Amino acid sequence: MHVTPSMMETEAPPVMEARRWIDGVTFPPDRPLLNVSQAAPVDPPPEALRQAMADFALHETSAHLYGPVLGRPELRAQVAKDWTSEYGGTVSPDDVAITSGCNQAFATAMATIAQFGDEVILPSPWYFNHKMWLDMNGIKTVPLDCGESLIPNPAEAERLITDKTRAIVFVTPNNPTGAEYPAGVLKAFFDLCQSHDLALIVDETYRDFHSSSDAPHLLFQEPNWRETLIQLYSFSKSYRLTGHRVGALVASPERLAQVEKFLDTVAICPNQLGQLSALWGMQNLRQWLAGERDEILNRRAAIEKEFADLEGWDVLGVGAYFAYVRHPFDEPSDKVAKRLVTDASVLALPGTMFAPENAPIGVNCLRFAFANIDATDIAELANRLRSLSR
Amino acid sequence: MHVTPSMMETEAPPVMEARRWIDGVTFPPDRPLLNVSQAAPVDPPPEALRQAMADFALHETSAHLYGPVLGRPELRAQVAKDWTSEYGGTVSPDDVAITSGCNQAFATAMATIAQFGDEVILPSPWYFNHKMWLDMNGIKTVPLDCGESLIPNPAEAERLITDKTRAIVFVTPNNPTGAEYPAGVLKAFFDLCQSHDLALIVDETYRDFHSSSDAPHLLFQEPNWRETLIQLYSFSKSYRLTGHRVGALVASPERLAQVEKFLDTVAICPNQLGQLSALWGMQNLRQWLAGERDEILNRRAAIEKEFADLEGWDVLGVGAYFAYVRHPFDEPSDKVAKRLVTDASVLALPGTMFAPENAPIGVNCLRFAFANIDATDIAELANRLRSLSR
Repeated sequence: MHVTPSMMETEAPPVMEARRWIDGVTFPPDRPLLNVSQAAPVDPPPEALRQAMADFALHETSAHLYGPVLGRPELRAQVAKDWTSEYGGTVSPDDVAITSGCNQAFATAMATIAQFGDEVILPSPWYFNHKMWLDMNGIKTVPLDCGESLIPNPAEAERLITDKTRAIVFVTPNNPTGAEYPAGVLKAFFDLCQSHDLALIVDETYRDFHSSSDAPHLLFQEPNWRETLIQLYSFSKSYRLTGHRVGALVASPERLAQVEKFLDTVAICPNQLGQLSALWGMQNLRQWLAGERDEILNRRAAIEKEFADLEGWDVLGVGAYFAYVRHPFDEPSDKVAKRLVTDASVLALPGTMFAPENAPIGVNCLRFAFANIDATDIAELANRLRSLSR
Repeated sequence: MHVTPSMMETEAPPVMEARRWIDGVTFPPDRPLLNVSQAAPVDPPPEALRQAMADFALHETSAHLYGPVLGRPELRAQVAKDWTSEYGGTVSPDDVAITSGCNQAFATAMATIAQFGDEVILPSPWYFNHKMWLDMNGIKTVPLDCGESLIPNPAEAERLITDKTRAIVFVTPNNPTGAEYPAGVLKAFFDLCQSHDLALIVDETYRDFHSSSDAPHLLFQEPNWRETLIQLYSFSKSYRLTGHRVGALVASPERLAQVEKFLDTVAICPNQLGQLSALWGMQNLRQWLAGERDEILNRRAAIEKEFADLEGWDVLGVGAYFAYVRHPFDEPSDKVAKRLVTDASVLALPGTMFAPENAPIGVNCLRFAFANIDATDIAELANRLRSLSR
């Protein structure tokens, strides 16, 4: 059975791998599993949205038929309108494509930019699905080590650029670190990319949980943003639509003409009911989403408070759904993560899943996706970590 | 703005291109548009399925959350059970992956098999999205001209195999030609692929509308089918779920371990509500689907009857949703197709969209996707073609 060498060398999906660690494990009744592994809501959307969805299923014929490859015009228009108001500058409906989730938005953007043998710069720690996509397509990942600041440095990035470099990829607020990249850093990288004719891809999946209420960057105000910037977004976290697979890609219409080719072959169109639901969410759940954000910010505060008292554990980054924490053990994080399952009934992902082999920022760290556990459970998490033998 | 050379050379999506031919066109009231361009239902699913969908949206929490990358276990199990009963042999749930539509199943299979610089044999005429995927990934399409028989010949295929060949791709019943490949042809190609360590990919999107009630092939009865065969399927046509994007890929568990990597990066999981709906359809709409098939077979008979009286037009193939017809004009089919819009209010796709440049099987032919028009409209279609000036 032939398999491409690139695919053989690509890592298996980490979240599925971590699920296998708890398969068949029975946790003590007084110490049930605390699952802080996946960055996803565990509750369904609010009832009003579920009711809207049911009505679409029953009465909206277009929910069941093919739609345009780049998405429903009214959803593209709503994204353009909201983005223009939130970021300043101008985003037009022709700049917006709807995708089947934000991973697909990344794969799509990359498919238009980089091919076999090209290079892409990923700040490390990186989001593992980005690394996997590059690996399986024979595109070389060039790591940009962020060190313990977790913020990429443009001068260091510039030294990594070769004639094969095609793009630099940001995730902000970051997965796995929670770091919120300052607007000035985004602008410096935008200028760097523009001067080298690279794409700057900014994945803002967790944008709606940013701790600042201001625009997270001003790049859409750059008159020539379309030459350089590709922004990715997800409706999954904000409106609890993970199971419906709806994301967005914002780029120039010229780029979207290429994007359309890829999406036609890999999706034909995004799931229509999901698109209708995302639009309904944007139009009706603004206040609800503000409450969700408040709760996430409360949990973030609880993480900061609890870990401040936890000897040997250092929170390097915290934001959106994530805390990226240095552990106190003399063993690599993949071993620590497995021990957490058996000794503390905690499932967290090891930093090794997000970094180059043997990089300190990987082996020394764990990612806690805390969005799904409340302040009480966060205190319990800290207690369990405290009781672990060193 | 950098775009990969492979993507630049990839054709734009033909269905979107054809839609633009009718944008802004006003058709005479006595001669409204007959749209025979896209192979898709135009009606929503039956009410019982829409009601089931609404209930899932309201009450089934898992409909809204991430699920396993390879699909819901109960849907994988249902496919395995039905396939075993319909094809004979054994298909186990571990052989089945659920995808976001059948195009994604193809892209996924191919991503595990062929990379930049490899070659894949496509019988011509081909399904354009297959060709596009190969082009944008730098994989060379090697056309296997089927001629007017529309059935590929294994001896001719063998002459095209090089050390870079990785797969042969079938669509049966065929899009665009409607041809139903005989079971013996499938077996001959299976043996050919096995002896050269190639994958045989068989896209059976239109399987449920095959004119024979027997199994369309016996390949799942081959004890070693998993070494060679990859079967693709779509729930879209059978249960009118096009807008929900649900398909399947049947292959060895070893292949699916590679498939899982690709699907994780490009989809995370298939749309959950679509999967629940597909399963509901399989379990409750068998009788309804039999009626749908009867109606398609009636329309097929109407095509055969009407075109038999149509001088100069030759039906080369008819089956499932499609008739592939040689036109009587001294101009290439892309010109003819555009003239059909203005002179006959008919939107059909030209053979040039499905074949290598200048190939007679492309320039001389048109594809009529007749599934959406009833016998009356099929007679009307024939009348309009008859009245066209030569």
